[in-house]
Amino acid sequence: MSFTYHRDVLPNGLRVVTVETPHLHTALLAVYVRTGSRHESVLSNGVSHFLEHLFFRGSEGWPDTVRMNSAVEEVGGNLNGVTTRDHGYYYTPLHPAHLDVGLAILGDMLTRPRLTDMEVERSIILEEMLDEVDEKGRDIDIDNLSKRLLFPDHPLSFKIAGTRESVSALTHAQVLEHFARHYVTGNLVVSAAGRVKHDEVLALVERHFARLPQGPESLDIAPPPTPRGPRLHVVTHDEAQTEFRLSFRTVPEHHPDWPALQLLRRFLDDGLSSRLPFEIVEKRGLAYSVHASLEAFHDAGIFEIEAASAPERASLVVGEMFRVLGELAQSPVAEEELARAKRRHRMLLEFSQDSPGELSGWFAGTELFRRPESFGLRADLVDSASATQVRDVARRYFARDNLTVVAVGQRKGIKALEKVVETAEGLPSAT
Amino acid sequence: MSFTYHRDVLPNGLRVVTVETPHLHTALLAVYVRTGSRHESVLSNGVSHFLEHLFFRGSEGWPDTVRMNSAVEEVGGNLNGVTTRDHGYYYTPLHPAHLDVGLAILGDMLTRPRLTDMEVERSIILEEMLDEVDEKGRDIDIDNLSKRLLFPDHPLSFKIAGTRESVSALTHAQVLEHFARHYVTGNLVVSAAGRVKHDEVLALVERHFARLPQGPESLDIAPPPTPRGPRLHVVTHDEAQTEFRLSFRTVPEHHPDWPALQLLRRFLDDGLSSRLPFEIVEKRGLAYSVHASLEAFHDAGIFEIEAASAPERASLVVGEMFRVLGELAQSPVAEEELARAKRRHRMLLEFSQDSPGELSGWFAGTELFRRPESFGLRADLVDSASATQVRDVARRYFARDNLTVVAVGQRKGIKALEKVVETAEGLPSAT
Repeated sequence: MSFTYHRDVLPNGLRVVTVETPHLHTALLAVYVRTGSRHESVLSNGVSHFLEHLFFRGSEGWPDTVRMNSAVEEVGGNLNGVTTRDHGYYYTPLHPAHLDVGLAILGDMLTRPRLTDMEVERSIILEEMLDEVDEKGRDIDIDNLSKRLLFPDHPLSFKIAGTRESVSALTHAQVLEHFARHYVTGNLVVSAAGRVKHDEVLALVERHFARLPQGPESLDIAPPPTPRGPRLHVVTHDEAQTEFRLSFRTVPEHHPDWPALQLLRRFLDDGLSSRLPFEIVEKRGLAYSVHASLEAFHDAGIFEIEAASAPERASLVVGEMFRVLGELAQSPVAEEELARAKRRHRMLLEFSQDSPGELSGWFAGTELFRRPESFGLRADLVDSASATQVRDVARRYFARDNLTVVAVGQRKGIKALEKVVETAEGLPSAT
Repeated sequence: MSFTYHRDVLPNGLRVVTVETPHLHTALLAVYVRTGSRHESVLSNGVSHFLEHLFFRGSEGWPDTVRMNSAVEEVGGNLNGVTTRDHGYYYTPLHPAHLDVGLAILGDMLTRPRLTDMEVERSIILEEMLDEVDEKGRDIDIDNLSKRLLFPDHPLSFKIAGTRESVSALTHAQVLEHFARHYVTGNLVVSAAGRVKHDEVLALVERHFARLPQGPESLDIAPPPTPRGPRLHVVTHDEAQTEFRLSFRTVPEHHPDWPALQLLRRFLDDGLSSRLPFEIVEKRGLAYSVHASLEAFHDAGIFEIEAASAPERASLVVGEMFRVLGELAQSPVAEEELARAKRRHRMLLEFSQDSPGELSGWFAGTELFRRPESFGLRADLVDSASATQVRDVARRYFARDNLTVVAVGQRKGIKALEKVVETAEGLPSAT
């Protein structure tokens, strides 16, 4: 591999991850923090995301939006922030000659933010939230709807940005409290990837994050089991296409079943020749696109399959998905298909060494929750899964009573969809 | 620069572009063809895009979807196709050790396609087109609507995928005719970028594209002037946000005004500190995001500015856009802002040398229409633009009578929007 991975822990507990790729011409700085909507209450829902927005309004050293952002943009960067359900991150690409500028600003922003202009920012966030609702303000975001069904009465069911009510009521005191609790040494990982030098990065992080208060990582409450399926939740909304998602509760990435789940994802959706695009799009022309993905928290996982189709075809597409999943649960895949998926897994890992973003996500993002494996070990784990193991894992998770379906679309076609989900023909029963 | 650019013309007229970046670990193969919806008639509209879909169904050597695509996926690839208004391209990333497989398949696909399964493919395309319409089948795609206003009665106003009627009526004979006319040596550019070797690429292209018939490039009818503005076109559609786009007709990339237009784009939208995000999002909280971009055909260009906002704020956002554009047309930008935009332009060009996709688009995609400049020359052209030149160019194109606006959203707020566009306060009058 053309990169070198370093992990350091400063005396104050702050973790620093450096991935050197001297062959590339950019650098990527990122700071990961273990705080998101799952670390909130019904009343404070949205505070992690609100805080993320406020950081960009300036710090003691760069006291407003323009000064802070133009200083980063000046060196080829673009300061960005993302909040998810279980963590957040701040990042910028930049010219490798100017790591000092980038780390100075990230350090100041996260240790001495001004946290001003809360009312303008509230208005921006309320505007941003319109993306997930219909013209009456009802939620039509398939991801939000799914998570609510999968994790009832648990913070993982919260919307990341919060609700209209919670965001409207958030106070400056709540924001300050959240900042004080979560932006602490034990809860952050600082990372530099690309054409960077380990020694330089370490010295700069020590200098610019020295003010970060010591404190422990955020605690998570483990989610309860998902209610027994099959379950279908429908939200009617007038669009040309009906959108739907199947979710199966699985396990987190460190679980021994994970490599087989990764392979199942590839059999289902990894190019036009993989099973879902081939059966549903290419062969039957029922939909234009279909996707399978794995989502993982450190204490839960989900296998997600989604598509959009003309309303009258939704039940056909979902029925076909059940048939395809059922086949994987019934008979082991051919050795050729298995070998291809493993080879692709290895090649795509190899390609990642040209991507500071992927390297940073792998080594520093994972570090928030557990020590990341090397690419080699991960490839070996996937390579060691046999066709029968993969079939057994498919049988375990693609079970009828592990099925949750969400659909957003016209009323047309919903009756047929209800019937198909109710019987879930093709899917195995729980073992 | 860490790359080497080669341009070759084979004896049959086929152009081959190779960009060697030995420091990277992937390769990207692409074939560009100068055919898209502007090379169609009302009756054949959608045929370029339909043909693009059919290629993936197999060739003489790889006679069906699964055999063709799995052979590419086997070597780390993903065969993709894109059709635009004035050209199309087929591409795949792949492992650098297997260029032979990729070029053999692309060559066979584009010279000996089977072009079968037209009915299944028609059904997929009709499904794909649902994305751009509302539940009653009316077009709500802001790009389609804008192009129709900008280029009335000209093929650049056609929808890329065609209409429901034209696609439903397309015959196999029309597809064959389009294929025979446009997939010829003078109309294609084959390209390899990444960890590739010029000699190897050239030998493989000579072998695998030998069957390509000789023929000339596609002809374009120059578009007529855009009707005088200000003009507003509204399509009502019940969504939480109203979406809108301002378009100003400009010039193509080889025009002397282009470097100033590139700089104007950066002043307006190039990070949080640039003018539109700062004034509209950060300062006033009127919208969540706003974007400026340049679109260019070889004989016409468009400056596009778009955003989405709550319906009652649409007129405020558009009014604010006029004010920001008017300022650029009125007074020269400060030297500091100008210098920053030029520096960022240079740095982002430098970053591109790690991206086979960007290198391929620049050197091979441009080659379809004209000889591309080197990165150095392009940077010099941009560097040579002065603040007063930039202001004069802003005044020329951001003129009131050069304004076209499209909005898609609820009826609420439309009256106010009409008023704002009608007066277009802040924009200069034609010079």
